[in-house]
Amino acid sequence: MPDRFLSSMIISYKGRNILVDCGEGTQVAMRKAHTGFKATDIICITHFHGDHIFGLPGLLLTIGNSGRIEPITIIGPIGLRDILDAFLTSIPYLPYDINLIEDPKVGLGFKIFGNVLQVRDKNSYAEDEIIISTLDLEHSSPCLGYSFYIPRRPKFLPEKAIEYGIPKEKWSILQSGKAIVYKGNTYRPSQMLGKKRRGIKLSYITDTRPIDEIVGFIEESNFFVCEGTYGDSGDIEKAIENKHMTFREAAELAFKGKVDRLLLTHFSPAMEDPNTYIKHAKTIFENTIIGYDGYTEVLSYE
Amino acid sequence: MPDRFLSSMIISYKGRNILVDCGEGTQVAMRKAHTGFKATDIICITHFHGDHIFGLPGLLLTIGNSGRIEPITIIGPIGLRDILDAFLTSIPYLPYDINLIEDPKVGLGFKIFGNVLQVRDKNSYAEDEIIISTLDLEHSSPCLGYSFYIPRRPKFLPEKAIEYGIPKEKWSILQSGKAIVYKGNTYRPSQMLGKKRRGIKLSYITDTRPIDEIVGFIEESNFFVCEGTYGDSGDIEKAIENKHMTFREAAELAFKGKVDRLLLTHFSPAMEDPNTYIKHAKTIFENTIIGYDGYTEVLSYE
Repeated sequence: MPDRFLSSMIISYKGRNILVDCGEGTQVAMRKAHTGFKATDIICITHFHGDHIFGLPGLLLTIGNSGRIEPITIIGPIGLRDILDAFLTSIPYLPYDINLIEDPKVGLGFKIFGNVLQVRDKNSYAEDEIIISTLDLEHSSPCLGYSFYIPRRPKFLPEKAIEYGIPKEKWSILQSGKAIVYKGNTYRPSQMLGKKRRGIKLSYITDTRPIDEIVGFIEESNFFVCEGTYGDSGDIEKAIENKHMTFREAAELAFKGKVDRLLLTHFSPAMEDPNTYIKHAKTIFENTIIGYDGYTEVLSYE
Repeated sequence: MPDRFLSSMIISYKGRNILVDCGEGTQVAMRKAHTGFKATDIICITHFHGDHIFGLPGLLLTIGNSGRIEPITIIGPIGLRDILDAFLTSIPYLPYDINLIEDPKVGLGFKIFGNVLQVRDKNSYAEDEIIISTLDLEHSSPCLGYSFYIPRRPKFLPEKAIEYGIPKEKWSILQSGKAIVYKGNTYRPSQMLGKKRRGIKLSYITDTRPIDEIVGFIEESNFFVCEGTYGDSGDIEKAIENKHMTFREAAELAFKGKVDRLLLTHFSPAMEDPNTYIKHAKTIFENTIIGYDGYTEVLSYE
């Protein structure tokens, strides 16, 4: 729409970017938000309706023109390979490889290898920095929900290291996650660590009915981005027919999933000002935000 | 770009629309310009670079959602069928047919049949209302220039009709282009017509070097839309390398082609304000306009 871009999200982590969905104009929104293009390491596609993918060929080309040569991981539901093959027909050349992951059935661990977020190298002992999980949703075409989890390492406990008699100059090795051998004994980092700590969890659910499975999937998210195609709870029949949600239904998911905050997005073009309907969500879940173009949020460890 | 749409053009004729090129965001520009979608009868594609076609799948879908069921004619260079097939992979259903015309080698006559501009029905005696011609250009991929000619019928001369003794009530049949039989004699409209009159000619040339063939092709256009990728005449080497034109080169074509007016478009993103360079064109061709988003022009018979 002239005054509202299509829904999409950029996660920026240590200067590397993960994009979720790419409708027509997403690259213009990225320019406005100064996200840059070269650091786009991962693109997650929820499903193949035009408002979520028609910006992809242009974006892939623009990323190519940005000087990027490192591979890009593209994740999406079943059919991703066919759609990408079709789009690439209109692009004669891209200076980078595409690592295509169609319908992943397990969480994908990513780590920065060679300056780029790449899917876990099975031979490395590296801890995952971001884990991307997917959930099958209920829409008129195969559609995936996404969650992004950034684990937090347990605290390093100096008193334990002192107890084992390990000299201070060896601590940093243990802190970086590697084992050491000292006076013939092997010490593992886990021996010096405190209890588990909550990481950062961000979930993205769009184009679906509010199926029960979503509650467990988004559980305890710090930030839950969810579609609210219809603001008025009275539009529930339209929501059922078109396989979307009302604000109220999204808020119910947020409540049941015990998330910290809910951001509503993916508004029907018929809804001129979504703020008019915020009460329909807040009655159920107080910490609700109505998304708008360029909305930015910083999430940190507690 | 955030503040400049990609180049494209809508010709509106008797409420029917012809679109030339469709980069990402063209449908947003159309919304801003209130052109509507349902009356899009013909789409002309110059070539298959992203900035000219990546908005096409989204536009086709939006036209489908506008309630259109009448066929759409899409014209483009060699390869059009493959590109469209690829795009249609991502569109499960369109409620209208596409009449695809790949690399036409002759001018195409269009007329409004059943409320829609359609290519000439060979069995009809109807005069063409718009003639679309193409020219092979010189770019890094096959690229077509377009001209749109709206012929003007010669004046109907009542004095001739009186001379032949044809009663007034028969004149309107002759004026509409049909022959009549009166008192056993056949009279053709051509017998009652004055001399030829100039129609309206509009030309669109983008993504090419200024090859000689363009001069004859655009000759005596009322309005000549031409790329001016580089404003500064000093950028001539870049223009040659990237198969584009400078403002000066476009102006030289306008001058040699004896057009009435030149509109420059398709500016390099590196050129922040194209107006800075207008002198490079005006030195050669005074009637030069620098295009901008939403520029509108009404062309009428003389």
